[in-house]
Amino acid sequence: MAGNSFGTLFRFTTWGESHGPAIGVVVDGCPSLLSLTEADIQPWLDKRRPGQSRYTTQRQEPDQVRILSGVFEGQTTGTPVSLMIENTDQRSKDYSEIAAKFRPGHADYTYWKKYGIRDYRGGGRSSARETACRVAAGAVARKVLGDGVTVRGALVQIGPHKVDRSRWDWAEVDNNPFFCPDPQAAAEWADYLDGIRKSGSSIGAVVEVVASGLPAGLGDPLYDKLDGDLARAMMTINAVKGVEIGNGFEAATLTGEQNADEMRAGPDGEPEFLSNQSGGILGGISTGQDVVVRFAVKPTSSILTPRLTVDLQGKDTDILTKGRHDPCVGIRAVPVGEAMMACVLADHLLRHRAYARG
Amino acid sequence: MAGNSFGTLFRFTTWGESHGPAIGVVVDGCPSLLSLTEADIQPWLDKRRPGQSRYTTQRQEPDQVRILSGVFEGQTTGTPVSLMIENTDQRSKDYSEIAAKFRPGHADYTYWKKYGIRDYRGGGRSSARETACRVAAGAVARKVLGDGVTVRGALVQIGPHKVDRSRWDWAEVDNNPFFCPDPQAAAEWADYLDGIRKSGSSIGAVVEVVASGLPAGLGDPLYDKLDGDLARAMMTINAVKGVEIGNGFEAATLTGEQNADEMRAGPDGEPEFLSNQSGGILGGISTGQDVVVRFAVKPTSSILTPRLTVDLQGKDTDILTKGRHDPCVGIRAVPVGEAMMACVLADHLLRHRAYARG
Amino acid sequence: MAGNSFGTLFRFTTWGESHGPAIGVVVDGCPSLLSLTEADIQPWLDKRRPGQSRYTTQRQEPDQVRILSGVFEGQTTGTPVSLMIENTDQRSKDYSEIAAKFRPGHADYTYWKKYGIRDYRGGGRSSARETACRVAAGAVARKVLGDGVTVRGALVQIGPHKVDRSRWDWAEVDNNPFFCPDPQAAAEWADYLDGIRKSGSSIGAVVEVVASGLPAGLGDPLYDKLDGDLARAMMTINAVKGVEIGNGFEAATLTGEQNADEMRAGPDGEPEFLSNQSGGILGGISTGQDVVVRFAVKPTSSILTPRLTVDLQGKDTDILTKGRHDPCVGIRAVPVGEAMMACVLADHLLRHRAYARG
Amino acid sequence: MAGNSFGTLFRFTTWGESHGPAIGVVVDGCPSLLSLTEADIQPWLDKRRPGQSRYTTQRQEPDQVRILSGVFEGQTTGTPVSLMIENTDQRSKDYSEIAAKFRPGHADYTYWKKYGIRDYRGGGRSSARETACRVAAGAVARKVLGDGVTVRGALVQIGPHKVDRSRWDWAEVDNNPFFCPDPQAAAEWADYLDGIRKSGSSIGAVVEVVASGLPAGLGDPLYDKLDGDLARAMMTINAVKGVEIGNGFEAATLTGEQNADEMRAGPDGEPEFLSNQSGGILGGISTGQDVVVRFAVKPTSSILTPRLTVDLQGKDTDILTKGRHDPCVGIRAVPVGEAMMACVLADHLLRHRAYARG
Repeated sequence: MAGNSFGTLFRFTTWGESHGPAIGVVVDGCPSLLSLTEADIQPWLDKRRPGQSRYTTQRQEPDQVRILSGVFEGQTTGTPVSLMIENTDQRSKDYSEIAAKFRPGHADYTYWKKYGIRDYRGGGRSSARETACRVAAGAVARKVLGDGVTVRGALVQIGPHKVDRSRWDWAEVDNNPFFCPDPQAAAEWADYLDGIRKSGSSIGAVVEVVASGLPAGLGDPLYDKLDGDLARAMMTINAVKGVEIGNGFEAATLTGEQNADEMRAGPDGEPEFLSNQSGGILGGISTGQDVVVRFAVKPTSSILTPRLTVDLQGKDTDILTKGRHDPCVGIRAVPVGEAMMACVLADHLLRHRAYARG
Repeated sequence: MAGNSFGTLFRFTTWGESHGPAIGVVVDGCPSLLSLTEADIQPWLDKRRPGQSRYTTQRQEPDQVRILSGVFEGQTTGTPVSLMIENTDQRSKDYSEIAAKFRPGHADYTYWKKYGIRDYRGGGRSSARETACRVAAGAVARKVLGDGVTVRGALVQIGPHKVDRSRWDWAEVDNNPFFCPDPQAAAEWADYLDGIRKSGSSIGAVVEVVASGLPAGLGDPLYDKLDGDLARAMMTINAVKGVEIGNGFEAATLTGEQNADEMRAGPDGEPEFLSNQSGGILGGISTGQDVVVRFAVKPTSSILTPRLTVDLQGKDTDILTKGRHDPCVGIRAVPVGEAMMACVLADHLLRHRAYARG
Repeated sequence: MAGNSFGTLFRFTTWGESHGPAIGVVVDGCPSLLSLTEADIQPWLDKRRPGQSRYTTQRQEPDQVRILSGVFEGQTTGTPVSLMIENTDQRSKDYSEIAAKFRPGHADYTYWKKYGIRDYRGGGRSSARETACRVAAGAVARKVLGDGVTVRGALVQIGPHKVDRSRWDWAEVDNNPFFCPDPQAAAEWADYLDGIRKSGSSIGAVVEVVASGLPAGLGDPLYDKLDGDLARAMMTINAVKGVEIGNGFEAATLTGEQNADEMRAGPDGEPEFLSNQSGGILGGISTGQDVVVRFAVKPTSSILTPRLTVDLQGKDTDILTKGRHDPCVGIRAVPVGEAMMACVLADHLLRHRAYARG
Repeated sequence: MAGNSFGTLFRFTTWGESHGPAIGVVVDGCPSLLSLTEADIQPWLDKRRPGQSRYTTQRQEPDQVRILSGVFEGQTTGTPVSLMIENTDQRSKDYSEIAAKFRPGHADYTYWKKYGIRDYRGGGRSSARETACRVAAGAVARKVLGDGVTVRGALVQIGPHKVDRSRWDWAEVDNNPFFCPDPQAAAEWADYLDGIRKSGSSIGAVVEVVASGLPAGLGDPLYDKLDGDLARAMMTINAVKGVEIGNGFEAATLTGEQNADEMRAGPDGEPEFLSNQSGGILGGISTGQDVVVRFAVKPTSSILTPRLTVDLQGKDTDILTKGRHDPCVGIRAVPVGEAMMACVLADHLLRHRAYARG
């Protein structure tokens, strides 16, 4: 509709600019009687918060969330849950260069062409700061999903360096500043990323998000397929350029024999799949296996090397983006990807209940 | 909402099963006073139509489209355009095996779990036959976009075999049965795919769709970004497992210096980009460059090798899917991808007009 | 969105013009495993069908509905139910006058201003013929509501003549050509309407629709309130100019003591209301009492007295609308109002399930 | 979708409870480059604000609005406009009675049945306090409509006492505490309402809202008709029980000759209507005449006479609602009705632009 909402029955709307007084999200369609306090949301925001290692931007924001509505005596009431995060680190700096020139790779030019005006301070609305709102909404979505569903993300590639999946250990994700499930890769990435950082450059990455414990049947073919909604969800995250489900682009190289997941009767009579090439989705509907999504994050466009550009008057010039930037913005995209997955699943869980038989 | 509609202002709703009396699409939100007849739609359907080479299913459907409403004396009236295609080749065959077992890689199991019933004849609603409706809607969308906008697709990879981009020639796309822009690759693919077909196997593919002639400014951040809507659009096409914009997953391996598209003043004072890594979209808004989308199509799951599965009673069994199948369903996905791109762009063009300044 | 759809989870989209080849409706979001055949829909269409008495237009349309999708072996599959009704009585007549002039009270002028073109044959899209599609969708909605919910309509006023509510008998509704629950009023109306008809005039009416057997809790405050959706539903029916819930406009004249429905404990411990001034809705949510809606239908604008108007060239002229018209279009609005009520309730019942607790 | 949003392209989402820390509204889809400051919004809130005369509730809220996003250097940026109003007069009182019993005529029982929990302090989400958010959104909508469009409301009936339309003077609306356009009626109402107030009773009312200066062509038949959307808009306002367009329910009593608005060529060649029975809408599309909407507001259910009810345990009891209440809540509904009209029109103006020819 108007662009700043996501979801159908579980639906959130975000607002706010990077350097305005605050940012926020209104979560509408949250069922009643779920326990919810700020303490349920804050840890996820803390996970995304910048400035926690030398590999993320040094902007210091406490990102303290406040529940303004929709909760009464610790429980959701079914009315909109309004969450607000005040912006505290709005460093007073000189924006005259950003205001006058288009930064290559950023949304400066397109916002200008679309709106004829832009709040250029810190990227305004196009800043990754907005993703804090997604994370807050995702925390509410997790409450809707309940304890039986787990949504976890990991960084699986930085530049050309991938994790070794044989070493995958979810417990390792919290032991390094990269959300990396492979401790050996994490150690190597630290050196690699130090080099990137010191040279004032940046690098892309790939994030993987996995949801476990879902029932079969989520997703509404043909245009509200679960994978379609997940693709949209991830592609709307800042800097994302590609999304894949299950084996994704690798499926293009496989034969029908290699690709289809065979089935056997499980111990309880329910079918079990012998593999999960499909990433837990067939025909746009969840199979009950893990839902697996990966997305590619481009390198931060703000780097310390001057880049050719033009100014608002259409004159050739160049620009060098100083300031506090992420050498690999993909790292902080991990909790954001988790949140978007949780929101898509919560929405489809509610939709599933609506149409459920019997 | 209910799953079978796509778009906001330019919005279509499809209906129909593979072996029912007909399939159809209602296109709502088509502006008035566009010239439109069946002859504007039929060629695109003919392009998608099966049975035109030995590389696609031998099902023979004329796919004759009929306009039932929304057009008066050759012009659209602004009211819903209802398009219907009768199903004529509903071969009377024995469906007892498909009815009783779940075909691996197909949507049989998930439809069963979701709905508790399925029209198993020819895949029912989950059949690729539905994509004819998308192509018909896309033909109407092209009218909305006008002659200044071109939307073209090509097959760029079959199995491990990619086109050589240095040989790319759009004119070649109609000269081979693969929509391949590289004549040499097309010749090689013919042999490769004959082998796949004769062995009763199947193979995946990658499709690329490019839109040219768009204005800058299309797309509604943050959740109705142009790339988000394109990702959803493509991911809802049957058998698609991955979508990328511009350099896509390759962006993960690049540095900020390599990835961002620099700008120079063009001859008319408007900025020009020196590259198009972004695929024509920055911050979810079109830049005015070509919009470039690629998607991965998995191999057809219907193959002549028996596969392990279970039946409706939960008993172990196997299944071999005879019948008329595409050895590479990615081929016919090319016109479908074009159509979905056209529909997304038409929708955003109308939205753009709504918010346009003065 | 684009204008021709109604509902959220139970959602229908209609298409077709009065004198095109057919009209139709796609019902999306119908749950699976409901028994449904043409025989479930046809009786409701027959009730609305014109030409059944001298008090409705003499256009003769069998209004034979055909199910084109979404049903398999007599049961809904959860996929879109496409219903089509062919137009058979497209009398070849001279439309040159209607084409060249704007009929006062009709949508001729506004369609012309909006679209710059209109299918003037029989009113095109703005014809009451479209309401057959609403009735067909309503028949499906009744299946969703199940046997425990009853939706019944009646004509309660023609011109200045109201029914006597002390004589209200639902069984009488089918015993007269007016859907009138008061047999004495029906007899009087027959004479009155004969006079109107013979003079080539027309008259307005009021319709009341009542739903019984609903649970408390339907409706989504604040903007998808049950009464808000009912108001929109009824106001979109051709010729409707007012909608009220419960005591409606009479509430403006009452005191708080007179208006509020007091409560007492019922035999099963559940509260019972001592009156139903509210029309079964408080705060936008159903109370469990009968939901009562009334709407006013203006007189048919097609009459045999010449009316002042202008032509397409902006010249003064007059027009006399010959042809087959309803002296009181409110009569045939009764089954249409029932259908719209059923659709709103079915939608909210599904939404209710989505958010339902435990 | 989830209930707390209104509109399609111009879309707002409200949040907040009567006695929470704040209430607010996010306006999404506001075009860029409109001048907007708090000073554009505050006067409309002041108009709605309680406690300004003895005829409205004595709750004292400054209702100070704050713009948190979407505006940069005094102009809208096209991003969401987040508006917040802090609740300051949350009088600490004893809610134990309201918490334990259902107040007749209020939404207590239905919220309880729907959500299983409710924030009973001051009505929580169902409080008329939420309408301040509608008024704030309406102020932004007026900016979208521009100076050429005027949206004005008036109280036209209190209890049985109607204004005399021959004395209608818009300038009088601001000269009395009733928004009454007839000074003589206003004087009479003062006495009448003093009586109501002193007896601890309440009374219903009718509000009329008129929009002038609109182009012909707004409204999207058949289900997003302008009158359909207006009906929904008004019916979702607290305590509204009926909505009518133009002559409304009176149309039921008229003949076709009396009801249809005849046309003549105007001085500039454009057609002019000789009357406005239609209330400026034909076939769901604006005619270019004034759009006229009326709605009935029921009497406040909070009165000083004990009413029969039940408690949460299902036991018979009674309740007397002390506190600060409006003897005629219809008065403060005037600016709310104006705001909803403005929002509907702004939305349809944007939609109109999207589909506009040429």
